[in-house]
Amino acid sequence: MTHIFNDPAAFAEESLEGFVQLHADLVRQVPGGVVRRGRQRDGKVAIVLGGGSGHYPMFAGFVGPGLADGAVVGNIFTSPSAQWAYTVARHADRGGGVVFCYGNYAGDVLNFGSATERLQGEGIAAANLIVHDDVLSAPPTERERRRGLAGDFVVARVLAGAADAGRSLEEVVSVGGRANDRTRTVGVAFGGCTFPGAHEPLFEVPAGQMAIGMGAHGEPGLENVPALSSDELARTLLDHIAADVPEDAGERVAVVVNGMGATKQEELFLFWRDLAPLIADRGWTPVEPEVGEIITSLNMEGLSLTLTWLDDELEQYWTAPAYGPGYRKGSVAGLRASADDMADTDLAIEAVIPDASAASREAAETATQLLAAALEAVRDAETDLGDADAVAGDGDHGRGMVRGLGAALEAMSAAVSRGAGLKAALGLAGDAWAERAGGTSGALWGAATRAFGTQFDETGTPTAEQVVAGAEAFRDCIARLGRVSVGDKSMLDAIAPATETFVEAVGRGVPLGAAVQSAATAADDAARATADLSPRVGRARPLAERSVGHPDPGALSYALVVGSLARALEAGDD
Amino acid sequence: MTHIFNDPAAFAEESLEGFVQLHADLVRQVPGGVVRRGRQRDGKVAIVLGGGSGHYPMFAGFVGPGLADGAVVGNIFTSPSAQWAYTVARHADRGGGVVFCYGNYAGDVLNFGSATERLQGEGIAAANLIVHDDVLSAPPTERERRRGLAGDFVVARVLAGAADAGRSLEEVVSVGGRANDRTRTVGVAFGGCTFPGAHEPLFEVPAGQMAIGMGAHGEPGLENVPALSSDELARTLLDHIAADVPEDAGERVAVVVNGMGATKQEELFLFWRDLAPLIADRGWTPVEPEVGEIITSLNMEGLSLTLTWLDDELEQYWTAPAYGPGYRKGSVAGLRASADDMADTDLAIEAVIPDASAASREAAETATQLLAAALEAVRDAETDLGDADAVAGDGDHGRGMVRGLGAALEAMSAAVSRGAGLKAALGLAGDAWAERAGGTSGALWGAATRAFGTQFDETGTPTAEQVVAGAEAFRDCIARLGRVSVGDKSMLDAIAPATETFVEAVGRGVPLGAAVQSAATAADDAARATADLSPRVGRARPLAERSVGHPDPGALSYALVVGSLARALEAGDD
Repeated sequence: MTHIFNDPAAFAEESLEGFVQLHADLVRQVPGGVVRRGRQRDGKVAIVLGGGSGHYPMFAGFVGPGLADGAVVGNIFTSPSAQWAYTVARHADRGGGVVFCYGNYAGDVLNFGSATERLQGEGIAAANLIVHDDVLSAPPTERERRRGLAGDFVVARVLAGAADAGRSLEEVVSVGGRANDRTRTVGVAFGGCTFPGAHEPLFEVPAGQMAIGMGAHGEPGLENVPALSSDELARTLLDHIAADVPEDAGERVAVVVNGMGATKQEELFLFWRDLAPLIADRGWTPVEPEVGEIITSLNMEGLSLTLTWLDDELEQYWTAPAYGPGYRKGSVAGLRASADDMADTDLAIEAVIPDASAASREAAETATQLLAAALEAVRDAETDLGDADAVAGDGDHGRGMVRGLGAALEAMSAAVSRGAGLKAALGLAGDAWAERAGGTSGALWGAATRAFGTQFDETGTPTAEQVVAGAEAFRDCIARLGRVSVGDKSMLDAIAPATETFVEAVGRGVPLGAAVQSAATAADDAARATADLSPRVGRARPLAERSVGHPDPGALSYALVVGSLARALEAGDD
Repeated sequence: MTHIFNDPAAFAEESLEGFVQLHADLVRQVPGGVVRRGRQRDGKVAIVLGGGSGHYPMFAGFVGPGLADGAVVGNIFTSPSAQWAYTVARHADRGGGVVFCYGNYAGDVLNFGSATERLQGEGIAAANLIVHDDVLSAPPTERERRRGLAGDFVVARVLAGAADAGRSLEEVVSVGGRANDRTRTVGVAFGGCTFPGAHEPLFEVPAGQMAIGMGAHGEPGLENVPALSSDELARTLLDHIAADVPEDAGERVAVVVNGMGATKQEELFLFWRDLAPLIADRGWTPVEPEVGEIITSLNMEGLSLTLTWLDDELEQYWTAPAYGPGYRKGSVAGLRASADDMADTDLAIEAVIPDASAASREAAETATQLLAAALEAVRDAETDLGDADAVAGDGDHGRGMVRGLGAALEAMSAAVSRGAGLKAALGLAGDAWAERAGGTSGALWGAATRAFGTQFDETGTPTAEQVVAGAEAFRDCIARLGRVSVGDKSMLDAIAPATETFVEAVGRGVPLGAAVQSAATAADDAARATADLSPRVGRARPLAERSVGHPDPGALSYALVVGSLARALEAGDD
């Protein structure tokens, strides 16, 4: 159970507050997470970790010398928004660019990916290291699909070591990628975990059993088997890892034995006693093994075992000194924060509104009216969209669309009143959408709206060609960040034919309003037709099967929005 | 639950093995526990912590620079033996003497006290700091009776700081005592803990309730109340501490928020968020607070709050750098162990057998025969003694007496064969008794047997006066280490009248055998009469009430042993 909280909904936020107050000499809170206290060397590559809360010391505990420059902190077991990832990265960046390092989960991939595009759009070099170490979550042939577990820590230590050593962004990413490719983890759970305020665990493991391969949020693993003794467990877990040794493996290995939350340090020591000789039997030499809590899952009972095959460079970074709130090793010089370090400067990263032409500002005003029309349409349909989502989801799609569009409209109005042109206004609207809507759908709409805006030019007059390029950028962004193809039963199934229709109509010289009307019709037809599609089912989404015979809610809301834009344009033409 | 183990009975031992292997660069295993890796400065006062296992990082995790020089490691929730405490202290000692620091629990007080006397007997300066910080375990008027909790850590840090600074034993004890007197802790538990291999928890807290004041082994606290929100909990715990602020308190306080095992670090951060403003409201300033696991109780759910009011000297030691397996802070120079450090030298501390006169060696042989007779008598009565103990105890008293006496006889025979005189032979017999019998009774018998031996002189001929002094030393040792007075319903109630009878008889010129026979009769009468006594009941020993109307098993076994000695002496006289 989780026992200590006030309002359960504020658990992650209040916990972070306490963490930041306690470790104020090491970390500084910024919107969306924390960064290292004190200004780092100019030109240093910034390492930014992140993901949901509930995994301490991952991620915020690993900020400091020899560790990361910042951590983005989401709600419990929930990816932080792209806006938060962007903000933390902006605060951490010292001109050397930013590397986001996170586990391979759809929400994180989406949001960090989106933040990366935004940083790059602003001229800040940014890259991603998506850790995929959980060997039982996908076979060796699909290694890229594997989830991230405690391997995050090894990869982060290597990235940090390379960045501290003054390596370039490309070099840091290259050595981090090598660590990622040589890292293997397998986990086991004896019992589930309980959200603050909940009376039932999020998932359970039957008494006397253990779930081999269970993920950090209770994702199903290989199988449930009767609980083993420590030495049998050590043998079993090591066997799973040994079945997928990297091709270029040497004999020196970094080892992490990680407690999942409610497993005692004494149990982990005992496990190490049984594991160490088995590693030696295979001819491998553990290098400065870590045995303790690295990535927890609230109060889950269980542990994970990670091995990373080292080369000289990886070993140098793995064994380097470190000093963070949640991990300390060796001697680090100059730890005390100076008075300058303690000054909370540059907390607000305010958007720069570039000068814009009158035509561009006027177009932004028009876009604001269109957004208002879309919000009204979505508000009217909120319940229907919720019902459509409830078939296979949690039924909050309508609510999320209203919240996201509302935030986008507010941000756009504010931008317009500050003299923003179409490009800046759409960018800020998209950011607000992603940040406030929450969830995958909000992150996608926000990023795609920003992508749409990037096709315009603040100083000139918006053209039909730019609108076409914007529509294509919107579509491509959804496909790229959402990692979907046409036919996967997603909003892309409505977006793709609608965009094609629109592009073709504009190409034929059809006026914009009529072209959008054609697109809306195409979108509507295609959205309804998604009822005939089968979803691409991920291992962790068995519920999606229930959606067969029902249209995709994302496709429906896209058609709804395009329809409302068409009607608003038509009314404007009158 | 505790899930990771092989043989549950070997949990503590196997866990310690893993711990020592993992942290071989920081600690070295010695019989009974661990000491710091590397030779410390000659003349440095050695700080030795200790107690039962299941409390990691307390105690073994706190060995290193800025921390202790050694830790004595008992079985789970069980005091280590006096022999173990002695051995670890001998390994840790660098000529500056030893300070044992431990929580106020009867078994620890007894065993560390006994080891202290043995060290002092060998000319090694030794002192004890018995931490008594748990405010709800006894009122302010009986502060010395309070149990020890996370206050151990604060006191240990202060002791270590003073010792590292080169202070003398007296100075170290003085500043440590000041920290102890200014430290207050209150704990709360939400759920119990489970022994390795057990299916039922050791104790439980009703669902939705919390046990305020519960001790580290489930000792009853103030009351069970409905669980509070974090801010209400912070207020309640701080109120309990504020009700007993030391008289000379300043405004600067060391603060420890300690997780009991299964409480998440995120919960502790959240608690800190709520606690910090309440501390400030009272005008106190937290100095480098610690929020994390300091002293756990297996997988208990709960936390404790500790405040120590600092002065300049205490603050200096509290904030000093430290580097151990379970606690790291600031920068410590010269951390890497050298090859010399890694050599496992002087592991065996063999007892020195001093040269002895023929008469003393002959007396030792006689004592061996007497011990053999006592062992035979106790063996015959093993079941009866067990039954007597089962009334209010765990029924293992007979077993413990047989095991202890057997070990004592074995050690004494070995000593005699190496030419030991009476003094050395009794000392080694007592040590073996305490180490192998286990439990309070074994520790008392062992220490008292050693104390008996100290009254003899290896080079001369044992006299009746020395035997009288030995009997008195035996009695006084039991009273002192067992912290009992006549009438408390303990073995002392048989020992005291028997000793008086014996001393008086020898004084009248009665031969030794007859004097022992009178003592045996007095012991037998007094042991039976303990049935009429009411026990002195500690708060944690409700079972003792059941003993009313039954004789004390310790008194019975004492009478039995003295009776067997009398018969053996009589037979020898024939």
